[in-house]
This record gives sequence, C-alpha cells and structure tokens, in this order.
Amino acid sequence: MKHTISILVENEFGALARIAGLFSGRGYNIESLTVAPTLDPAISRMTINTIGDDRTIEQIIKQLNRLISVVKVKDVTAEDPITKNLALIKVNLNRRNRDKLKSIIADFDAMITISDDTCSVIQAVADDGGIIRLTEALKPYGVMEFVSTGSVAIQKGKRVIRA
Amino acid sequence: MKHTISILVENEFGALARIAGLFSGRGYNIESLTVAPTLDPAISRMTINTIGDDRTIEQIIKQLNRLISVVKVKDVTAEDPITKNLALIKVNLNRRNRDKLKSIIADFDAMITISDDTCSVIQAVADDGGIIRLTEALKPYGVMEFVSTGSVAIQKGKRVIRA
Repeated sequence: MKHTISILVENEFGALARIAGLFSGRGYNIESLTVAPTLDPAISRMTINTIGDDRTIEQIIKQLNRLISVVKVKDVTAEDPITKNLALIKVNLNRRNRDKLKSIIADFDAMITISDDTCSVIQAVADDGGIIRLTEALKPYGVMEFVSTGSVAIQKGKRVIRA
Repeated sequence: MKHTISILVENEFGALARIAGLFSGRGYNIESLTVAPTLDPAISRMTINTIGDDRTIEQIIKQLNRLISVVKVKDVTAEDPITKNLALIKVNLNRRNRDKLKSIIADFDAMITISDDTCSVIQAVADDGGIIRLTEALKPYGVMEFVSTGSVAIQKGKRVIRA
C-alpha cells in the first residue's frame, strides 16, 4: 500500500541521511521525498511517499520517533490529505504542434512558464495521477525533459502538523 | 554561495542515504531536497539546494560522480535555471479577512485549493523569494501550517539533463 508520511525534523547535519537510512536498511524504497524549511528555520518538513505493508511502515515510524532530530512523525495516508506534485516538463514546440499543445495545457490547468523558438517549459500542479496523465498526453509531441517534486501533503480542515 | 545541484540516480535502496551522507559528512546542510521518479521509472531525479563555498561543492560533486548509483550530476547554479517551489499554506479564513486574503492570493498568482468554513489551503508556485514574500504577506492573517517542496530546477532552452 502507498503511504504518505509527514515528518518535522530539526534542520541539522545528518538528519536526512539517518532518516533515509531507516527506510533503505529495511529494503524499502522511498518513491519520492521532499524536505524544505518550515516558517521556523530550525525545523524542516519532510514528506515521504513509499509503498509497503502497514506493519513495516508502523515499525519504521516507531524508529523515526526514536531519532533525536525528529520532532514529529505522522502517517497521513488514512486522512485523505490534499496531495500536490509540481512538475516542470520541457517539450518541443513548433508550428505543427503549437495549437495541440496549448489545448492539452488548458485541459490540465497547466501553464507555459517559459518559451523560446524551439521549446517550452510547462508547469503543472496536480496529484501524482494528474501529472502522469498530463505527461502521457504530451509524450506524442516530444517530451525533452521531466522534473517533478514528488507529492507534498497537507491535512484538510483544522488539523495541522506542528512542532 | 547558494548552489542548486541536479542529480540523476538509479532508483534503488540506499542511494538517497548515501548522497545525503556525502553532504552531512562534510558538515554541509542540505537546505532543501526533492527526489522523484523520471519518465524512466528506474531513474529518479534529485534537486538539492545547499549553501557552501564553490571549492567544497566541487569536491562533493566529484564524490557524487563516484557513486555507482549516480548516473549524472550537474551544478546548474551558474546557468540561471528556472527554479520553482510549490507551497501549500493553511490560513484562517473568516468574514473579516476574506477580502484581504483574496487580494493577496491574486497579487501572488496563487489560488485556494480547498476551503471550508474556518480555513483555506492556498497553493502557490514561485521561486523561493516569491514563496517567502507570499508567506510574509499572509502571516498577519494567521498562517496555521506551511508545507513546501523546495525548489526544483530546469535549464532554459534546449539544454537537458538526461541519462
């Protein structure tokens, strides 16, 4: 099962390596991970997307909680959080495909962030499925490069994850 | 100096922990990091933002290149890439601040992704500076929670980072 885990962590050397090591030490791949500062620059927030059985994830969370640099851990999967992934997709742009590309971009509520004579960078925010569908729609027109952040998650309503 | 490093890496256990360890082993903090699959599911793309002197970054890049799981490394800082950071910001919403919040959201080209009677989640894509300015503008109205991906980077024009 896919799990989305939110972690607040002290912004210090080695915390990321230790956290990543907890997953790989159990043979678990991290599908995507983001870590960036919160409004308190001493605390960073990490979102990890991973696939694994509930029992092992539970054990990993227990171990995460034991790390001194970890302030808070929450598996938000069951809470149906808002999840958003940002993708930058470089595509060939030419006279023949310009109109078709523009219609795909409009369909997916994406936008062109920069463009020159030969290529455009499309910026899109969606859940993972939306990013995959957009990319599949663009593929026939030549995807030159694809970068994405992986999903970040935030709970709905008043629930928050804070230090 | 701030550096933005793009890395293509084989999607395997332990690669992230080893890469993060290279930075922390030299006493270097990673300010933000994203890693997510590329169109080739065997290869993930990582964007690391870090602050450090050019010489040490150069040494870290040499060491990264020696890791078997690392396919490609590029310090894209000097190329003035497009950098975009996605933030989800939960704010208090009430009758008094509703109009003011909507005007800030419009000014920063952000949007409300979900809303109920008491709070809204604002979604914004900008460079790091833009996200900071938006957050500062929202703070007087009550920021309940802040999650961001950290910046991803893509070079302008035809240049690409591919396996």
